Amino acid sequence: VAVTGPTNSGARRYYFEDFAPGQRFRTGTYAVDAAQIVAFARAFDPQPFHLDETAAAKSIFEGLAASGWHTAAITMRLLVTGEIRPVNGILGLAVEELRWLRPVRPGDVLRVESEILDRRPSRSRPGYGVVRIRHTTSNQRDETVQTFTSVLLVERRAPSGPAG
Amino acid sequence: VAVTGPTNSGARRYYFEDFAPGQRFRTGTYAVDAAQIVAFARAFDPQPFHLDETAAAKSIFEGLAASGWHTAAITMRLLVTGEIRPVNGILGLAVEELRWLRPVRPGDVLRVESEILDRRPSRSRPGYGVVRIRHTTSNQRDETVQTFTSVLLVERRAPSGPAG
Repeated sequence: VAVTGPTNSGARRYYFEDFAPGQRFRTGTYAVDAAQIVAFARAFDPQPFHLDETAAAKSIFEGLAASGWHTAAITMRLLVTGEIRPVNGILGLAVEELRWLRPVRPGDVLRVESEILDRRPSRSRPGYGVVRIRHTTSNQRDETVQTFTSVLLVERRAPSGPAG
Repeated sequence: VAVTGPTNSGARRYYFEDFAPGQRFRTGTYAVDAAQIVAFARAFDPQPFHLDETAAAKSIFEGLAASGWHTAAITMRLLVTGEIRPVNGILGLAVEELRWLRPVRPGDVLRVESEILDRRPSRSRPGYGVVRIRHTTSNQRDETVQTFTSVLLVERRAPSGPAG
């Protein structure tokens, strides 16, 4: 498994009511190598600058670079084993403003820092709330490689219906 | 390879100037099975509802469902072999408003329809422009499973600098 470092597998799990704006969460780290970059690209993003060092050197990336969707998937892997642990799992409804700011290269070691932006009750599902979380994925030089905001569906501690 | 149906490998390639709002593009299809769903989840989103049919049946998904990031990656795979062919490849700077609207299940067959929203010259890269494209991923019942808008960097036909 590529994820190393502090994770929170035995830690508390969060209900909707436990999340508050400004709370911050961290993840372990994920080491990226050329074989992973090429394998993901072959499956999901087979373009020369993600597959071949020579072609990549001549591209706008100036060297082999991970697919942005690979970076997003690695970010999810880090989140699932990190400190954010909603009681019903990490259930994304949507993503806002995903930005790829720098290439991810072979040898990079990624980690994610997250901050709760806001929360509101779900309009369509009475037992749930919606929590928006900003995620920043960084490399070993503390350079931001990707940012996005996830919109999660999180179970409420007490049902809001008449039987609650 | 999971992608089948009409693709455009021999077709024209588009410069920035060739894209215009309202143009529509299609892709081939991609058949999703349980083994793919579980393999992607093991690597990038190891949560019970993406890994195990029994656990998934008891979850909010009411059955095995693909990770949303898997659906996004499959969408990219379809786009790369589809009708949108920028001369410099599909180079995403950002994604806006990614929404997962329905679960993707084993047996689903996905395809993507895309529409050009707008374009503008790049502020930071004189030889490039920025094109925004809306992508709708659907299943074999014509139900929308995911939508997002991609922000692509596309090479211009003629440099805008003094030497152009």
